Amino acid sequence: MPPVIGVFDSGFGGLTVLHELLRVLPEADYLYFGDTAHLPYGAKSAHTVAKYALSSTRFLEERGAEMLVIACNTATALALDEIRAGSSIPVTGVIEPGAERVAEISRAKRAAVIATEATVASHAYQKALTARGITAIEKACPLFVPLVEEGWVEHPVTEQVAHIYLDEIFQKEAHGADVLMLACTHYPLLRTVLRRVSPPEIQIVDSAESTANQVAALVQPCKQRCTSPQSGRLSCFATDSVEKFRHLGERFLGRPLEHVELIDIET
Amino acid sequence: MPPVIGVFDSGFGGLTVLHELLRVLPEADYLYFGDTAHLPYGAKSAHTVAKYALSSTRFLEERGAEMLVIACNTATALALDEIRAGSSIPVTGVIEPGAERVAEISRAKRAAVIATEATVASHAYQKALTARGITAIEKACPLFVPLVEEGWVEHPVTEQVAHIYLDEIFQKEAHGADVLMLACTHYPLLRTVLRRVSPPEIQIVDSAESTANQVAALVQPCKQRCTSPQSGRLSCFATDSVEKFRHLGERFLGRPLEHVELIDIET
Repeated sequence: MPPVIGVFDSGFGGLTVLHELLRVLPEADYLYFGDTAHLPYGAKSAHTVAKYALSSTRFLEERGAEMLVIACNTATALALDEIRAGSSIPVTGVIEPGAERVAEISRAKRAAVIATEATVASHAYQKALTARGITAIEKACPLFVPLVEEGWVEHPVTEQVAHIYLDEIFQKEAHGADVLMLACTHYPLLRTVLRRVSPPEIQIVDSAESTANQVAALVQPCKQRCTSPQSGRLSCFATDSVEKFRHLGERFLGRPLEHVELIDIET
Repeated sequence: MPPVIGVFDSGFGGLTVLHELLRVLPEADYLYFGDTAHLPYGAKSAHTVAKYALSSTRFLEERGAEMLVIACNTATALALDEIRAGSSIPVTGVIEPGAERVAEISRAKRAAVIATEATVASHAYQKALTARGITAIEKACPLFVPLVEEGWVEHPVTEQVAHIYLDEIFQKEAHGADVLMLACTHYPLLRTVLRRVSPPEIQIVDSAESTANQVAALVQPCKQRCTSPQSGRLSCFATDSVEKFRHLGERFLGRPLEHVELIDIET
């Protein structure tokens, strides 16, 4: 039997991780939980994020998830240990897989990390990269998420904002870096623009892609046992407006979202 | 005795209303509540917003507020009736005062209203303006709040975004309008930029200013009784990071914020 994988995020961004999971593990069943009533986690404290994340992952376990992917950089940065302590199934965050990929490909051993304010303030990527011998220069890019949600992924304004943020980082502290780490699940949608405004020697590492690859490696034995050629099922849950979830989510997932269930959980 | 006025918002934006209140009623005491753990309300459903807003306004009443100002367009649009029903003191929202001011000054009887997505989706301004004989053309401007919070209030990117949003509205549906209504408490900080990119015949109405004037009229009798020449006291409460509240809040209020207390309320 293919595994049931629970994917959790504060909103829609984690659907870029699900998008990559569906690419590398199309036969698994997926339960996606977007805690949209409380988004964005990016500006909230560790205590608040841990409280919300745990309520959501417990729900996914109750619904049959056999492993959890915390497809949210802020929740991974601020609450991964608490989620692991409160779960009886394997939990994969988005930080370690991304950091491992950076360590594999960086020759300069120097990387720029772009993320939300809360992820940067947690220094979780810096810690994970330092532990692998990489010097990490972190920068918060708070306008990227709203620009993606406005749908301006290839817009001149977005390119101008990306220029301002990236020039600031590559011309100053991150001078000499050879990797740009996308440490927010919204950022894969900006990959084309970010490629265009980054210096040519910079390689882009996307934590959604790295995480999906690591989960695929984890379930490899079960994948070999699986004889079913069909695609897995996807059920989505959101704590706020199902219409908005469907509308925005389709853009992130790159396919139609048919079943989205509204959930009211106690926190 | 000057009154104790409770001012409620999902975050910092309501501090622009408090800023105007302090200008017109400097002798009152103020309790400001920013429900920062749940912000932004702009993308949430009516049910969720009402639940959060009521918890916060009950807290303000318990702390001694004698009247409430709902300094949040989303909460006023989605939950004013529920807040009034659940309160034993007078409640003023930000929509009616703004709509009244527009009706006073618009000769064309046609106004453009800019706001968050949730405020626009509620059509609360359209209803309030239609009731006063004004045709309202509403437009959501979701990038303005993050631009203000990034501190880019006079930035070329903000001017470009404002151009895109306002050109779209004034060259299309709002053609012939003579008023631009700022229906989000963050927008007063963009007033200079918005003035610059609006057609010259457009008058700008700011709901923060209109609301403060209406509250001042309400407490006029009590103001006349008041013999104390001194300034009132201000206490601030936030449901998430007090440091962030202080840092961002000072920009909105235009003065230092000394006492901010962290509050954990049941919702």
